[in-house]
This record gives sequence, C-alpha cells and structure tokens, in this order.
Amino acid sequence: MERGRPPGPRLTVLAGGVGAARFLRGLVAARPDAEITVVGNTADDIEVWGLHISPDLDTVMYTLAGRADLERGWGLAGETWSALCAMEQLGGPGWFQLGDQDLATHLWRTERLRRGVPLSRVTAELAERLRLPVRLLPMTDQRVTTRIRTGDHRDLHIQEYFVRERCEPEIAQVHYAGVERARPGPGVLHAIEGADAVILAPSNPVMSLGPILALPGVRPAVRSAARAVAVTPIVAGAAIKGPAVAMLRAVGWEPTAEGVAAGYQDCATQFVLDERDRRLAPAITALGVQPWLTDTLMVDLPAARRLAETVLEAAGV
Amino acid sequence: MERGRPPGPRLTVLAGGVGAARFLRGLVAARPDAEITVVGNTADDIEVWGLHISPDLDTVMYTLAGRADLERGWGLAGETWSALCAMEQLGGPGWFQLGDQDLATHLWRTERLRRGVPLSRVTAELAERLRLPVRLLPMTDQRVTTRIRTGDHRDLHIQEYFVRERCEPEIAQVHYAGVERARPGPGVLHAIEGADAVILAPSNPVMSLGPILALPGVRPAVRSAARAVAVTPIVAGAAIKGPAVAMLRAVGWEPTAEGVAAGYQDCATQFVLDERDRRLAPAITALGVQPWLTDTLMVDLPAARRLAETVLEAAGV
Repeated sequence: MERGRPPGPRLTVLAGGVGAARFLRGLVAARPDAEITVVGNTADDIEVWGLHISPDLDTVMYTLAGRADLERGWGLAGETWSALCAMEQLGGPGWFQLGDQDLATHLWRTERLRRGVPLSRVTAELAERLRLPVRLLPMTDQRVTTRIRTGDHRDLHIQEYFVRERCEPEIAQVHYAGVERARPGPGVLHAIEGADAVILAPSNPVMSLGPILALPGVRPAVRSAARAVAVTPIVAGAAIKGPAVAMLRAVGWEPTAEGVAAGYQDCATQFVLDERDRRLAPAITALGVQPWLTDTLMVDLPAARRLAETVLEAAGV
Repeated sequence: MERGRPPGPRLTVLAGGVGAARFLRGLVAARPDAEITVVGNTADDIEVWGLHISPDLDTVMYTLAGRADLERGWGLAGETWSALCAMEQLGGPGWFQLGDQDLATHLWRTERLRRGVPLSRVTAELAERLRLPVRLLPMTDQRVTTRIRTGDHRDLHIQEYFVRERCEPEIAQVHYAGVERARPGPGVLHAIEGADAVILAPSNPVMSLGPILALPGVRPAVRSAARAVAVTPIVAGAAIKGPAVAMLRAVGWEPTAEGVAAGYQDCATQFVLDERDRRLAPAITALGVQPWLTDTLMVDLPAARRLAETVLEAAGV
C-alpha cells in the first residue's frame, strides 16, 4: 500500500476455471488497488500419469500470469505436445491432454505434495513464482471430487465426464465425494468473513462453485459476509461455455439466470445478469435479490473489465 | 526360431550406457539370430522432478529402438525441451536435462513403480512397447547407487558428479551404496549362467560394470560362465567417452587396456583391445587372458558391427 493512500477493497472471489479466470483478469484491471483473494475449486483435480493436476487452479494461474492460451481456452500459450505423443506411443492414456510446458507445473506440484507439503502451500509457491496479482487459495487441502452418476449407472470423475466423454452421458446425479469430511483450506473462511465483498464468479454453479459452497462452513460464511454478489454463468438460457445447463437440470435448478439467482439467494443478495435476460429481473427482485444488468459476455479484456465494474458497483466498493 | 534352423547363440551382455548401446547395435546387426540378454546398470538411476530416471537402461532402449539421438550421445532424436524451460522458470532444477518425449518414459516408469510393479517388470513392458530386439534386464530391482566421495569430502550421487559437476571434482573414493543388501534382478544370474558367452561391454568399468559385478553372486556367475569376453573401454590410455580414467585411478586400476584386463582377469578369459594398444597384448597374455586386437572405435554402425564380429570370434560362437 502506498503511503497516504487508503487501501483498496478486500475482495474474495469464489472461482472455477475459464469463466472465473477471464472475470478475474477484468477485476484486476478494473481495481488494481484491490486486495483480491481467489478461492479456487479443486473438486475437478485428477491424477493423470501419476501427476496431480489442478485444472481450475491452473487456469486461473496461467490466465492471471498472462500465460494462458486464451484462444484454445485452456493450457499455456505456445504449448508443445511431445510428451503426450510419446506417451500415446507407449500405450499410455492420452485423453487428458497435458502439454509439455504445463507438465512442469504438474511435476513441480506433485513432487511437493509427495513430500507432504499441503496443496495450499504449494499453490502459494506457484503463485509467487508466476507473480500472480492475487492471492490464490485452493478451497481445501483435502481430496474432494465431483463425481457424475450417469443414466447408465456409471460413476465418472468429473474430468472423465467432461473431457473424456465430452459431456455426452446423461447425468442422473452429481455428488461431491469427500466434501462432508473436508475442511476449507487455510485462510478460506477468514478471507470470506473478512472481505468487503464476496464475489461468486461466472462459473458453473454445479461443477465449479458447488463444491466450494458445499464445504462445511463456507455457505454460512458467505451468508454472513458484508456483501455477496453472484455473476450469472447463464445467458439467454444457455451456458456461455461447458455443460452448465445439463448439470443445473440434474441438481434441480432451472437453467436460467433466474434459476441460478434462486440457487444462490440464501447467500448472494446481489445478482449480475445479462441485459439479454432483462425480462428475468423482476422475478429476481421478487426473490429478495437485487438484479444488476450489464453485458456479461467477456469477449475481450475491456469487456471483462466492464463486467467487473458492474460487479464492483453491485458490491458497493 | 525358424523351423529346421538351429537357434543362434545365447549371449548375455553386461551393459552401461552409450558405449554398450552402440556395441549392442553392432551385435544385433552381426548376429540377428542370437538370443541377446542385456543386464543393464541401474546404479546411476536418479530421482529428478519426482521421476525415476534410469539413464543407462534408457540409452540402451532408445538406441536399440532406433530412436536415440546418436549425435548428441544421449536422449531421443527430434527431442523438444519445453518442460525443462518451464521448470527452470518455476525455479526447479535444470541441471539434469529431461526432454519432453523422454519425460513420457519417466512418467510411465514412475507411475508403474509407485503402483508396486518392480523395475524389472516395468523395463520389460517398456522394451516390449519399443519392440527391442533384445531382452533387457535391470541388474537389480533394489536401489543401488554409485556415489563419489570427493577430495573436498563431499558425497555425490554419480549423476551429480557426472552431469551437474562435469566430472570436475577430485575423486577420493567410489562406492556402490546398497549393493551388499541387493539381489540380482529376476533372470540375471540365470542369463549369465546359461549363456554361451557373457560379454562385458565397452563401458566404464567403475561407473557402469562395477555395480553389476559387485552384486552378490554376479562375479562368481560370470567366472563360471561358458566363456566371458571383455571389451576395452580404454584406447591408447584414454577413455573413448566420459570419466573412466579418473575413476579407474580412484579404484586403483591402471587406466589402460592392460589395467582393465587385469581388473577383469578373474572373470573374463578373453579381452578385446584396440589395435592402437597392440604393444599391451603380451602383458595381457601374461595375465592368463587371451588378447584380441581390432579397431574398437565405433564411429558408425558398420564399425560397431566389425567390433561385434571380433567379440563373437573371441566368444567362440
């Protein structure tokens, strides 16, 4: 903090992957003075080739480090794929695509975890090395995994459903294995309770924010926070990206901005939805939630920054 | 074996890295009908980035699979280095250079080992996938490590001495940590005892073949083999490659073909040395060892094949 200048707002963002990462880029641009803490979803973490992969943490990390491949939507810019080709030649699994540069992150993380260092600490080390402009906290140091029970009675890891099977299986049930026994990671509850505003990023409510909010103590903490703003991941009845609509239906939420506002109404009093869904605003107001209208499609950094400005207005900071 | 055709000789080769790999390429070319078993040194295995690296096994594997970078002398042809660059950016160790394609082998091996599969089995699986024309056996499934005590009282892993410190430290002592408690790997003693000839490849006698011969039971097995032929790794008082001269001095062997023949005289009755060392032949004969003269410099595959032909002649097969 510079001398004589008041500190910026303390903002805590509950975050999934791509949508959250783009939003965070906009938020950092809109309020560079803010102290931003990101609570990242780890329920889609998976072991591949013996390595611990944290896809959502990495997406946030790479994006905020300016190293993400924004066009492909995941992984690093200028990535190469030699290890993957060689692994497939050895008959190893190739469905979860790990780039060569990306491997360094996973190797580094996995070795530290094997030495007994908790994920929260390893993540802080990586964030420091990548010079992130935010504090990045994994939601928990324990293992919590989003699993999909399919219509044909298979029990899939979320990445098997999402990547390997391209979201094709019918979803019968979604559950967060291990969540009842897990504790929020170090600093998570404190960051929520002490924030000037908590922001629920435009991430998949079931796959990304659901596991965070399901951790013991998190939902009550958000509820009692100074102010909580949710940003819709649904525009005109469709997910901006990914399988949110099918997943929302599976958990009994209406797959609209109104449905998401209703699902979050116990903890978020402010809801930012897209202008294209203007007609849903009165219904959201009727829920006791204050609607804020803006263009929520983050087609580029200026657009993400404009969305962040509306969110900051809704947050009153 | 084809019908009506006698099987080729059973040859068992004790092997280190590059020199052995080149020799083996020549041997396969010279006697494609031979049943070749390679007993590979694993005492320079090392853990890097949490991965189990077996440099000598891999050099043999990659060379015999036709995938080695023969010009660089190690690693794979067409290799890329993205993971290494990214690892160095994260502040990870970069002194042991792992290429991106190479990583697939190490990831694959490490995951199998972590699942409790012994190195011998993992090596057989890799050899099968790479369609090796030989059977490749790690010398042991236990951990044996060549360590260098330096003149300034440091205790270095052989790779730290060899790669990280470029063979610069003065060597006070060489020892094979763990060798007294280790057992030869499955099939190793049987392959030596049942061979028509055992061949000690032109590898570093201290760093590469020393650990194999130091395993309980191996030296007596070679001694009682039908015939054993050693190939010099020293030409005109200099190592063809690597730090053999300094290491031989450290263990009290004279760093010449004669010195190596003397060191092996208890187990190898035949010794192939370079024509440039013709003057040493009488001294070798005086040791009770039969000398065979040829050009031992394997500048290309035909040269390696010619060396192998002399070795086969010395082996009487």
